Amino acid sequence: MIEPMGNQYVVARQVYSQNAFDEEHKKLKRYHKTILDHFRIWCRCSPQKAKKIALSLFPIASWLPAYRLKEWLLSDIVSGVSTGLVAVLQGMAFALLVDISPIYGLYAAFFPLIVYFFFGTSRHISVGPFPILSTMVGSVVSKTGSTIDSEKVTAAASITVLVGLIQLGLGILQIGFIVIYLSESLISGFTTAAAIQVLVSQLKFIFQLTVPSYSDPFSIFKVLKSVFSQIGKTNIADLVTSLVILIVVFIVKELNQRYKHKLPAPIPIELIMTIIAAGVSYGFDFKTRFNVAVVGEMESGFKAPTAPSMEIWQNYIGDAFSIAIVGFAIAFSVASVYAAKYDYRINGNQELIAFGLSNIVGGSFQGFAGSTSLSRSGVQESTGGKTQIAGILSAVIVLIVIVAIGFLLESLQKSVLAALALGNLKGMLMQFGEVGRLWKKDKYDCIIWIFTFLAAIILGLGIGLGVAVAFQLLTIVFRTQFPKCSILANVGRSDIYKNRKDYPEIYETEGVKIFRCPSPLYFANIGFFKRKLIDAVGFKPARILRKRNKALKKIRKLVKKGQLQITPKGFIYTADGFKDSDDELDNNHIEELDKPIETSDLPFHIDWNSDLPLNIEVPKINLHSLILDFSAVSFVDTSSMRGLKSILQGFLRIDVDVYIVGTDDDFVEKLERCGFFDQEVQSSIFFLTIHDAILHIWMKKNYMISKYNHNQEKEMKADFTINTNGGLRNRDYQVSMETKL
Amino acid sequence: MIEPMGNQYVVARQVYSQNAFDEEHKKLKRYHKTILDHFRIWCRCSPQKAKKIALSLFPIASWLPAYRLKEWLLSDIVSGVSTGLVAVLQGMAFALLVDISPIYGLYAAFFPLIVYFFFGTSRHISVGPFPILSTMVGSVVSKTGSTIDSEKVTAAASITVLVGLIQLGLGILQIGFIVIYLSESLISGFTTAAAIQVLVSQLKFIFQLTVPSYSDPFSIFKVLKSVFSQIGKTNIADLVTSLVILIVVFIVKELNQRYKHKLPAPIPIELIMTIIAAGVSYGFDFKTRFNVAVVGEMESGFKAPTAPSMEIWQNYIGDAFSIAIVGFAIAFSVASVYAAKYDYRINGNQELIAFGLSNIVGGSFQGFAGSTSLSRSGVQESTGGKTQIAGILSAVIVLIVIVAIGFLLESLQKSVLAALALGNLKGMLMQFGEVGRLWKKDKYDCIIWIFTFLAAIILGLGIGLGVAVAFQLLTIVFRTQFPKCSILANVGRSDIYKNRKDYPEIYETEGVKIFRCPSPLYFANIGFFKRKLIDAVGFKPARILRKRNKALKKIRKLVKKGQLQITPKGFIYTADGFKDSDDELDNNHIEELDKPIETSDLPFHIDWNSDLPLNIEVPKINLHSLILDFSAVSFVDTSSMRGLKSILQGFLRIDVDVYIVGTDDDFVEKLERCGFFDQEVQSSIFFLTIHDAILHIWMKKNYMISKYNHNQEKEMKADFTINTNGGLRNRDYQVSMETKL
Repeated sequence: MIEPMGNQYVVARQVYSQNAFDEEHKKLKRYHKTILDHFRIWCRCSPQKAKKIALSLFPIASWLPAYRLKEWLLSDIVSGVSTGLVAVLQGMAFALLVDISPIYGLYAAFFPLIVYFFFGTSRHISVGPFPILSTMVGSVVSKTGSTIDSEKVTAAASITVLVGLIQLGLGILQIGFIVIYLSESLISGFTTAAAIQVLVSQLKFIFQLTVPSYSDPFSIFKVLKSVFSQIGKTNIADLVTSLVILIVVFIVKELNQRYKHKLPAPIPIELIMTIIAAGVSYGFDFKTRFNVAVVGEMESGFKAPTAPSMEIWQNYIGDAFSIAIVGFAIAFSVASVYAAKYDYRINGNQELIAFGLSNIVGGSFQGFAGSTSLSRSGVQESTGGKTQIAGILSAVIVLIVIVAIGFLLESLQKSVLAALALGNLKGMLMQFGEVGRLWKKDKYDCIIWIFTFLAAIILGLGIGLGVAVAFQLLTIVFRTQFPKCSILANVGRSDIYKNRKDYPEIYETEGVKIFRCPSPLYFANIGFFKRKLIDAVGFKPARILRKRNKALKKIRKLVKKGQLQITPKGFIYTADGFKDSDDELDNNHIEELDKPIETSDLPFHIDWNSDLPLNIEVPKINLHSLILDFSAVSFVDTSSMRGLKSILQGFLRIDVDVYIVGTDDDFVEKLERCGFFDQEVQSSIFFLTIHDAILHIWMKKNYMISKYNHNQEKEMKADFTINTNGGLRNRDYQVSMETKL
Repeated sequence: MIEPMGNQYVVARQVYSQNAFDEEHKKLKRYHKTILDHFRIWCRCSPQKAKKIALSLFPIASWLPAYRLKEWLLSDIVSGVSTGLVAVLQGMAFALLVDISPIYGLYAAFFPLIVYFFFGTSRHISVGPFPILSTMVGSVVSKTGSTIDSEKVTAAASITVLVGLIQLGLGILQIGFIVIYLSESLISGFTTAAAIQVLVSQLKFIFQLTVPSYSDPFSIFKVLKSVFSQIGKTNIADLVTSLVILIVVFIVKELNQRYKHKLPAPIPIELIMTIIAAGVSYGFDFKTRFNVAVVGEMESGFKAPTAPSMEIWQNYIGDAFSIAIVGFAIAFSVASVYAAKYDYRINGNQELIAFGLSNIVGGSFQGFAGSTSLSRSGVQESTGGKTQIAGILSAVIVLIVIVAIGFLLESLQKSVLAALALGNLKGMLMQFGEVGRLWKKDKYDCIIWIFTFLAAIILGLGIGLGVAVAFQLLTIVFRTQFPKCSILANVGRSDIYKNRKDYPEIYETEGVKIFRCPSPLYFANIGFFKRKLIDAVGFKPARILRKRNKALKKIRKLVKKGQLQITPKGFIYTADGFKDSDDELDNNHIEELDKPIETSDLPFHIDWNSDLPLNIEVPKINLHSLILDFSAVSFVDTSSMRGLKSILQGFLRIDVDVYIVGTDDDFVEKLERCGFFDQEVQSSIFFLTIHDAILHIWMKKNYMISKYNHNQEKEMKADFTINTNGGLRNRDYQVSMETKL
């Protein structure tokens, strides 16, 4: 008994319309939470909740106790030292982008590391200066028009504190949820564009040219134009140094990667190259011999914190906002890449708070706005960093340079800094390969990647990101806007209905169409849905209705004149000389022709599909029932509801029964609430499944099922005899289930 | 035989997994059209298509031959005369908003009517000057800083031609489809806001105050502030005239409406009031007596066309673009209201072409940019206008005024013009009632209305419309972003599965969860989906996996030390003094703990739900199969695909079988194309329906179906005995179908 039962799907139950089912299985009355309830729950306070919030505010309290000393410390030390050195170099390089002395770049590198150690949730990113943000801060500094160094430093620090306050505010207001709108394709496209932007921003140090700072849309082209127009002024010594360092770093990194398992720790090539470069430059006095640009004088020690300038806050709050968003977006997208790679969760709101505090503290101590550098985070991760212990160790390195050995770097070439920064962008640039893979997988995702990349390149990271997010949300609308509607037919003679184009052997009941819409219905696609439905049935219900109403008027007139006699077989036209006076018949409001057909006053029924007397022509339709499969229609809005109703009315008025199947329970409830149902469109049109509706139609239309058995015997042939009632509608159909292929 | 069959749903077939079904019913290979194919079809030319395009370019060719002379002409004449008079009055009034002489307003009223007659698809709107557009043109004129009248006229005309070119271009490029993004709620909110904007713009004429023209965001508040700060300077004569006219017009219009069926034609109250007002003002010399503002000198005849100024085009192309879009949006939304009311189709692209040509011609003859005035269209429709015959007749009226009787209007008060304009806004303002109705029907639609209204009021119509459309598209994302996921259970003991919270009598198979997601899956909701799924099953698969892997390591260690013996009943721990050295066990990469459990090297199986030896604790889970009902998941993107795969892996790795049911056919195909399937996640997890999957689970888990018959007998009780194989997994479950309520 088990075997045949086990592999058999056997069901015998009543045919269920939605109403019949509801009658038989009473629903529980459930209280649905209102918006107010949700708000109350959100506001509710409990010790657990308070503890959870407190813990989430200090992520270090969760991860530090779980630190695996033996296993991770060595990696973290190697990574921390390497990253620290890169942080020193990049801090100094990016200070040049802000147009202030390199020592401030070290402050900008130091403080965020300390703050993020306590508040951050990412284990792999290295916080601190980021070239794009530095450029954006630099553009604010240049807007102030100041030429005094101390004023420039104050401007940069003030805007940084404001950026921090904005980020902190967004974090406290829990606006971090916006990060769910950054899809993987978008992040990939955006970080690739950011890598290109950084690459272009470093060109001036490689070639050692003077390029003004741009930060508005199209800035990348302006920079490129400026670089290439001066390409003749290239300092060959700087270019050669850069290229040598780039090539060496690239090769050693490849070796590090290839022999990852054999090496105890990756070779700290950045450290080695910097020492060599500084030594060589100092030893051979490159500065005077080749006129290369060097880092220059480094004062040691910290500056006292200063109050930010209110004037800067007032004038540049817009810039601060875009710096805040771009900084967060960059940091979060890089952190997401590593979080996905190592499978841990980062918290958007907490990241906002961490970056906000980092920038507030950093700005107070005369640093400038930071986020994370793609290349530096790459160093931290690729040299084996496991936690932010690596971050705090890199802060120690920065600290040592600030207070003690900064002077050793005075003769280092700026082009060396740039080359080291570029050496780490490879991973981000490799993402170009995504485009081809995405195109094969999902066209929309590929378009998102390309759009985001182009927008971030052309419009700059700030505006580009906003435009890309808006575009990406639009794609969700596009995906649902042109649903792949299909006509279904029975496949395999049981209760399974599939797209009739897909299968060679299908079974369709004559006069019944099953139409499936696989997307929600709303204002932007209800018109498309209607067009597709009309294509599927092959006629416009409104047109049929008008023709029938016109014909009815003619018949009425004939009856009134006594020129028409009715026999059981149809009309007999008894008088001659009836001329079709179209003007006269048209002499009524067009609206009347769209009203339901009213024949109760006539002494007979009219079969619109039979031949009507003489010159009265009405298109015949081969459809008595239409089933709409709405199992994937997850919502309707009021615009589409009105459209849907007019579609249903159109069919009902020409005697086509419409059934809607597969909807969620709350679908009907919502329609009821919106006053969807009336005398014409009733809630009895809802059925549980397509097969329920089909069975109901067979019963209603009185199909005589002479032979229908439920085995899988392929040779079975079901014949139905339709036996419709009504005076003039005495026709017998012989319907075979296999009428159509 | 018919009766019982007719109301019975009887099915007996094989249990179908997607693969089994595909095997049995071979699919046809279909060629799916690529983007290129669609483009080819779009480009293809045929005589029919050419004819259709030609006809659609000249809508007049379709509607004029069908004109019902006897029936419509009288209405159209009455409407045309009334509208023509209003067009004269409004044209003059709105010319004041542009800051040029009233006669140019008559040109702006005349030419668009002629052009639209041939090219327009709306039967009821009255094209021509619109106060908001006039204000926008006025702001361009004031930006030029010119004080010479002829220069101002040239500026207005030039910008108008540019607006027309932009509209024409958009129309030819078929960009008119953007109008499907204007939902009913949005149009209702937008036109209501537009009515308020017009009302405010007319205040200065009612009170007769001098208000500068603003057209940027917040302009409505600036105008109101300006009006109220000068309220003491109100000209009482103007105010009284306005109020009297407003009240009279309002009352007579109400009477017109109430006795619609008794009156042969509505009383042309605007016409009457204008004649009286002009006469009284002239007779009693209001201008000198009360110092009221009058229309002033009217030169008769037309001006020769002039070439537009290229300088204006270059400098104000941005303004032109927003005028073009707002003009079209207003006209199209008003036209949509009437098209919905009278049930005909308007064509967005053709409307763009019609308005583009109207503005090009109007601007060439020194008119200014027009669209449709809400109030004037209201007049045209409410006085019985049926077609654009009314439009062309109103052009004749304007023409008569321009060439002959303009001088009669010289003493008319400007406040009369304003009052007549306001008298027709009632319908648009009545739309406030929508808010309450929408709130009851659909919260999102209500929010769209309010948002659109506020955006259009606060930011102005141009920016407001853009923001509102963007917001509206966002709501589509919101609707799908937080799907109402639910756990399903069998209701009624057949093949019907419903939300288990809704029904008091449900049947659940122990160890099986059925989870339904009623929305597409994409980057912004895959996280939400995962959270809801974890809530539903009650545990995190990743956590269970780590615990099990940890436990496995301990067991391995014990086995190696020979401290563990295995008996058929379970483990026996044979040695004392085993201490749980967590550090030692933790001494492995965390990633390893997330790998699939590998026990093939062990000489026994582990039943994770039984008690493990000594201090090895693993959470027990009460789930062996998870069914995901994806019948409403209409698409997945690549971000969510990756998320979905990791979710599936999580469950599969802890021995929970996952089944996905109810997907479209191309769902599996897409996943295959994206390399979704591998050793762990296989395509065999897809089943046709929930019931198929349930039956498959019963079979697979070897439930002994002692008694299961398919009648509707409520007292039936099905007992299953699970008989699992495998060394240590020798337990017998007694599962009742009614274990849970």
